Amino acid sequence: MKRVAVILSGCGYLDGAEIRESVLALLYLDQAGAKVEIFAPDIDQYHVVDHLSGNPTKESRNVLKESARIARSKIKPLQQLHAVDFDALVLPGGYGVAKNLSDFAFKGKDASVEPDFARVVTEFYQAQKPIGAICIAPAVLAVILQSQGGATVTIGEDAGTAAAITACGSTHEICDTEDFVYDPANKIASCSAYMREDSIAKVAQGIEKVVKQVLSVA
Amino acid sequence: MKRVAVILSGCGYLDGAEIRESVLALLYLDQAGAKVEIFAPDIDQYHVVDHLSGNPTKESRNVLKESARIARSKIKPLQQLHAVDFDALVLPGGYGVAKNLSDFAFKGKDASVEPDFARVVTEFYQAQKPIGAICIAPAVLAVILQSQGGATVTIGEDAGTAAAITACGSTHEICDTEDFVYDPANKIASCSAYMREDSIAKVAQGIEKVVKQVLSVA
Repeated sequence: MKRVAVILSGCGYLDGAEIRESVLALLYLDQAGAKVEIFAPDIDQYHVVDHLSGNPTKESRNVLKESARIARSKIKPLQQLHAVDFDALVLPGGYGVAKNLSDFAFKGKDASVEPDFARVVTEFYQAQKPIGAICIAPAVLAVILQSQGGATVTIGEDAGTAAAITACGSTHEICDTEDFVYDPANKIASCSAYMREDSIAKVAQGIEKVVKQVLSVA
Repeated sequence: MKRVAVILSGCGYLDGAEIRESVLALLYLDQAGAKVEIFAPDIDQYHVVDHLSGNPTKESRNVLKESARIARSKIKPLQQLHAVDFDALVLPGGYGVAKNLSDFAFKGKDASVEPDFARVVTEFYQAQKPIGAICIAPAVLAVILQSQGGATVTIGEDAGTAAAITACGSTHEICDTEDFVYDPANKIASCSAYMREDSIAKVAQGIEKVVKQVLSVA
């Protein structure tokens, strides 16, 4: 049974983890028989967004507590995650990856990354354990890996994000929502998911392919 | 193309809609080619629960705004939902159905139901348009339908909840998580989902069967 760690970044695409991407990753991991543990950093969100209006509110929410909604309370602080205990890592997207796990949403290639998130990704990368990266997560992966050789990934076709990936020394490949890109040298599989406002059925196809690829090489 | 309305009750199984059930219902509806619209009441949640500790907090959150996290902002107030505009209704579960859409969590068979939720369910029922009810939703359905002839449903095997359903004049059938119960006379399909703490793959099987049944008779 493959042991897979999943990192969430809140609960809601505008200020946290993309909910559907997170659930679909958990679904396909479970269907494939993986043993999954879920983690999130015990930090405040960058901000809280009213998902009806799209505007920020004055509330404050904690990334670990909000991620626990998706995890059905079975979640651990990210600082407890170590690659040595797992066979693979899966990273759903959402603005939480670019606002809470990093500030990529504001600084692009010059982003800072939450220290435990950078540490964990680096551990899996250096141990040659596979990483599945969904939506905007591949771009933050490129930021983390810029001093370590980078990788080949996709975030779909968004030109600005693709340029940031290239500026970090990684390679970007354009890819349809229902497909995925695999970098065999670095064991990194990625798909764009809700980087495009596509149907959930198409988003699910890309995520299922990423999960299967990750498990096949774990 | 079948037009299906989905009603959410927040975002998080302890104080709102069960996130995974909601996403899985949306996935299988989309995979089957249904045209989906999502609704939630524009009311405050009964309370907010910290999903890490399981304890209520002092926060206040709005059901429509929190449901918008799952709906990716494409959601309408429940008062705008009328059965005449749709072919079927799908109701994910979570404590939100029993705390926000009703007070079933506290009063069981004597629960009061949010007026628009009761109106919408009654409209679909009386129009003989199919209803898919997931997790705890079948129990609240039984409360709403107690003066209208009831239905045959499942919530899995929880004895207390099953007794409340029976007390409302409906019939409860014990059912495994990965299966579903169909009442052909009332066109109501139900499954227990996270009424049991089962795997997401099993929960998904039950929900997929409910969605397919609902669409096949819509």
